[in-house]
Amino acid sequence: MFNIALIGFGAVGKSFVKLLQLKKNLLPDNMKLKYIIKSDGGIYDKDGLDIDEIVKYTNSNNKIQKHPLWSNISFKDMIKNKDIDILVELTSTNIINGEPGYTHIKSALENNINVVTGNKGPILLYYHELKNISLKNDVYLKIGCTTGGALPSVNAGTIDVLGSQVTEIIGVLNGTTNFILEEMIKSNMDYKEALKKAQDLKIAEKDPSLDVLGIDTAIKMAILSKVIWDVDFDFEKLKIQGITNVRKKDLLDNISKKKTKLVGRAYFLNGNFEFEVKPMLLNKDHPLYFVDGKNKGVHYKTDILGDITVIGGASSPLNAAASIFRDLLYIIENRRR
Amino acid sequence: MFNIALIGFGAVGKSFVKLLQLKKNLLPDNMKLKYIIKSDGGIYDKDGLDIDEIVKYTNSNNKIQKHPLWSNISFKDMIKNKDIDILVELTSTNIINGEPGYTHIKSALENNINVVTGNKGPILLYYHELKNISLKNDVYLKIGCTTGGALPSVNAGTIDVLGSQVTEIIGVLNGTTNFILEEMIKSNMDYKEALKKAQDLKIAEKDPSLDVLGIDTAIKMAILSKVIWDVDFDFEKLKIQGITNVRKKDLLDNISKKKTKLVGRAYFLNGNFEFEVKPMLLNKDHPLYFVDGKNKGVHYKTDILGDITVIGGASSPLNAAASIFRDLLYIIENRRR
Repeated sequence: MFNIALIGFGAVGKSFVKLLQLKKNLLPDNMKLKYIIKSDGGIYDKDGLDIDEIVKYTNSNNKIQKHPLWSNISFKDMIKNKDIDILVELTSTNIINGEPGYTHIKSALENNINVVTGNKGPILLYYHELKNISLKNDVYLKIGCTTGGALPSVNAGTIDVLGSQVTEIIGVLNGTTNFILEEMIKSNMDYKEALKKAQDLKIAEKDPSLDVLGIDTAIKMAILSKVIWDVDFDFEKLKIQGITNVRKKDLLDNISKKKTKLVGRAYFLNGNFEFEVKPMLLNKDHPLYFVDGKNKGVHYKTDILGDITVIGGASSPLNAAASIFRDLLYIIENRRR
Repeated sequence: MFNIALIGFGAVGKSFVKLLQLKKNLLPDNMKLKYIIKSDGGIYDKDGLDIDEIVKYTNSNNKIQKHPLWSNISFKDMIKNKDIDILVELTSTNIINGEPGYTHIKSALENNINVVTGNKGPILLYYHELKNISLKNDVYLKIGCTTGGALPSVNAGTIDVLGSQVTEIIGVLNGTTNFILEEMIKSNMDYKEALKKAQDLKIAEKDPSLDVLGIDTAIKMAILSKVIWDVDFDFEKLKIQGITNVRKKDLLDNISKKKTKLVGRAYFLNGNFEFEVKPMLLNKDHPLYFVDGKNKGVHYKTDILGDITVIGGASSPLNAAASIFRDLLYIIENRRR
């Protein structure tokens, strides 16, 4: 049996439910979505919610709070009911203390519930602890969506290099800054103009700090480092520099042979974990030189499989939901055997 | 228990045994290599061969036929003994009838033995049949090494896009032709001179037909198509064109914006399976434009995860063995749960 609860019902959560409908043929007959929970209540059906009905309901812009099944049911009630195998955790991310995601994920794993999440905060802050609980209880903790959405960056750094040792991770993992830097060259704009354009196109957020200060890139690189090396460090102490001081003039130097991108690098030097995020010049023959526009990419150096690069970047809520769906199917396929 | 038999003991087979030694810490204590079999006999120890001893023995260029444990033991004896869980099949490839690999793989799967292979012939010709036997008997058939060695092309087109539909596969999958085409430009050579250079550097084989006629690329693309779409077709009828007629002049046209590469494309058009291998001009913004030198890459278009590209290409016998080792560990990790 695959009984699923969804907590968090924003754009990605809604797209995820749509995928459960659209991709029904890939799901086992005994899969049920029993809960959709938000901070102020939720809907629940012990026999499984009617997915077609919910998609129709939300497509018509109806508030889930007005749904006939809506009650003040909470995450704690769900845990008490003991009728769930997989939790899909999609509440808003919080990188200060990881809540409420941290409590949700920890509590689920402790109750032998598999977890799929796209929530960066709890994974950044508590990955080591959460992973250990999942191993102890032999349940999955799948986090692919936290490090680039549709880009299979976690898979590439784990499953695709199984048996080899990753010796370095290099990532261009933020589409917004990639777009801004490219726009400064293509449209001959300075940083502020290009940021404004990205905001007008809804590529950058109103408060673009997380992206342009390099924090989003650093979070993704930090999570990949923890997943791949099981290394622990204080995120606050990492060297992180954004693109706010990049000048048009710097970008145009050597433009035929080099490109400036916001790059994250993590590796070990003399046994010490080294980490940096900053604008870097990439040579024309660098495997991430061509990761342009809204694309993202990550490059792994390994001991016995050579270098492996994966590039992707579809970043709509549906694409992020597809990343969650990929991790869900991975659990189902491996639990089915 | 993980009891392994290795059949085929050329450069990749020898490197594989070295990896069993080098990566011992990743392997379970109950793993044993019981057989190393060649066409004229083999070595066998029912309690597990001494891997350190065998590595030392072969490192000193001793013929395995002179090893104290050598006997006329055959593949059939191994099947009869019923003491193996995983067969690593690395005999020479044969794309005319797939033998002897086809018989080895089929017989192993029928006897509930998991198979890891890098042998293109049987997979190209009999994938559908072999896959069905593996599914029926709930054992693994892992073939990652057949489509680009270290490049995780099968993983990328299956595990990394789980839940999405691949709508098109585009591959630059042959390092030799990639090297030749690049050399024609870089060193201002015509085709024959560049081929000669590749042969001198041992990048091209003495008889380079499989590479330069596009057959190697076509085999890899055909296998990916069969794995991803479960489509059946007659390999002999595919449109395959190599690089033997590419002129230096063609390559130099538009060189600043376009590059000629030997490309494979597979997709569905109005329900029909379409397939072609030929030299194609790739635009500067094409994700495989930058797959240079000995590198390889494959680009997948999908319905809900956008486009995903994976690039790699380490191609020494050790790297190919690392690809076999990756598939072996995948089986072990998933069987352990």
